Amino acid sequence: MSSEILDRLAETLEGRKTADPRSSYVAKLYAKGLDAILKKVAEEAAETIMAAKDGVREKIIYETADLWFHSLILLAQQGIHPDEILNELARREGLSGLVEKASRGQSGKEAA
Amino acid sequence: MSSEILDRLAETLEGRKTADPRSSYVAKLYAKGLDAILKKVAEEAAETIMAAKDGVREKIIYETADLWFHSLILLAQQGIHPDEILNELARREGLSGLVEKASRGQSGKEAA
Amino acid sequence: MSSEILDRLAETLEGRKTADPRSSYVAKLYAKGLDAILKKVAEEAAETIMAAKDGVREKIIYETADLWFHSLILLAQQGIHPDEILNELARREGLSGLVEKASRGQSGKEAA
Amino acid sequence: MSSEILDRLAETLEGRKTADPRSSYVAKLYAKGLDAILKKVAEEAAETIMAAKDGVREKIIYETADLWFHSLILLAQQGIHPDEILNELARREGLSGLVEKASRGQSGKEAA
Repeated sequence: MSSEILDRLAETLEGRKTADPRSSYVAKLYAKGLDAILKKVAEEAAETIMAAKDGVREKIIYETADLWFHSLILLAQQGIHPDEILNELARREGLSGLVEKASRGQSGKEAA
Repeated sequence: MSSEILDRLAETLEGRKTADPRSSYVAKLYAKGLDAILKKVAEEAAETIMAAKDGVREKIIYETADLWFHSLILLAQQGIHPDEILNELARREGLSGLVEKASRGQSGKEAA
Repeated sequence: MSSEILDRLAETLEGRKTADPRSSYVAKLYAKGLDAILKKVAEEAAETIMAAKDGVREKIIYETADLWFHSLILLAQQGIHPDEILNELARREGLSGLVEKASRGQSGKEAA
Repeated sequence: MSSEILDRLAETLEGRKTADPRSSYVAKLYAKGLDAILKKVAEEAAETIMAAKDGVREKIIYETADLWFHSLILLAQQGIHPDEILNELARREGLSGLVEKASRGQSGKEAA
């Protein structure tokens, strides 16, 4: 399921690049340019931190979703597909045993 | 593919909670507590921003992976599965048309 | 000169606490509460970082002024005078030789 | 008093530019370069935010001092004197009434 969400978000964000800036939040953010996107990434990181300090589960979920969403906008703006991030996370797994290989079964030597 | 990566990461990060703090980077970070995790989230957000300003594709991928990785650690520490973030993103799609309907031909109302 | 600026800013920011939220930017920010102020601190820190990456002197000055200004608003909201920050910086000087004692003349043993 | 602290800090930070990187924290940070300094600015902004969420007065003072200290290092590295920041704050006062006129009885128009 989750892969679909990220894929569909990536596809939508790609489509927003050619949209009228007045037609959507994302199209407007693209039009404002890189610094505006990065400012939102910083803002959402701060809100995630504040939500975690408040210890309110719903807020943490909401703000982390906002943080991921705006980092996906950054990726789209830079022509990077979210799979490249997931591949990087998987690559680290291979190198460092960050994640247990599902195929590894019970062996589980890990360093992360 | 991507869903597997997030699921496996979540599973591994869950397992680290009972690991010896000296045995891994993540176990050590848990032991340091919430503020240490949040400090890393802030740091990785800043590094993502700097990578984007440098405009170096590989650095943006690397730092965004770091940002997602540390937000996954935060989620694990708070007992939140990454699917809850993806569900929140999907929910917004339903509510606001954030993401184009896969079956977009049929509905296609969007606001994002 | 500089001490006057910080003192006068602190005095003004104190006065804004009892002002009508519609009367000024600062009064409005107080009314929104702590999280709104902290969000601005994060935002201005990010803008300072982006200005430094751009390497544009005027922007660095402008954004650092914004960062200091919003941290002064935070201090005022918390009932902390900027002199307490300056005293802390001076205290470190005493402890660690962070700053050369003016009175130390040419001796200048330092660790910062 | 306060102006002396900022002036003396600026002077010390200037002196660190030619110091052996192994001789002090600041000299080491210069040697690491701009990104390392900016990462510290982001980190200290995050710690200030967390301290404010904790509501612990001493921590807010300590972390704000750290934030100002690292922004002073950034300024020094960029060849900017803290007076330029204070002048910018004073300039805004003149333009926008950000700060109450010292001779407030006479004028007192303010917008900040």
